[in-house]
Amino acid sequence: MSIIKMKWNSSEKKIARAAFDKAYQREMEELINTIKEMATKLKNLSDVWKLEKYLSERRREIDAKYDYRYSKLILVFSRLMNDNFLFEEDLKGLSKDKIEIIMKLSSNY
Amino acid sequence: MSIIKMKWNSSEKKIARAAFDKAYQREMEELINTIKEMATKLKNLSDVWKLEKYLSERRREIDAKYDYRYSKLILVFSRLMNDNFLFEEDLKGLSKDKIEIIMKLSSNY
Repeated sequence: MSIIKMKWNSSEKKIARAAFDKAYQREMEELINTIKEMATKLKNLSDVWKLEKYLSERRREIDAKYDYRYSKLILVFSRLMNDNFLFEEDLKGLSKDKIEIIMKLSSNY
Repeated sequence: MSIIKMKWNSSEKKIARAAFDKAYQREMEELINTIKEMATKLKNLSDVWKLEKYLSERRREIDAKYDYRYSKLILVFSRLMNDNFLFEEDLKGLSKDKIEIIMKLSSNY
């Protein structure tokens, strides 16, 4: 079945939402730690503009990545898994075919 | 005389360059301190994007403000004085008319 057309039952929707939020939280924490570390090392304006560039790139990336549409969720989850913000145990309770395809796509990223 | 057409002799050019660089250094130090303070307070992504917005606005502002052309320098210095990055003692050695007009424009900002 096309991953775009996969059906999500109400229990899977709850699991998916929690997994999505957990990944978002992890990525946010990592981003904040990175910024704090970059900030402590700022020495001149060139460092400041590097931080600005980094932030605007991360903003674009995060805005695009966290797309909670069921037609996109398989791809979103495989990307998040590849980025180490989502783990197999977060997906427990989803149908076997969904987990399999998420894992497979993730390793091909 | 129009401030755009004011003549700068070589001694004034040296003083102007030093004053300009000093203001830039002060503004950079203040900016870095502000960013470090903002970074220590980051709690969520909304704070992160506020920092990003702040940085991109400051970048545009600083790029536009530090314009070292002799035709612009009187206005640049009056703005920097108004912003408390430049002080009367930094201008010592410039002609009296230049100092007077910088001070006057500064207080009108």
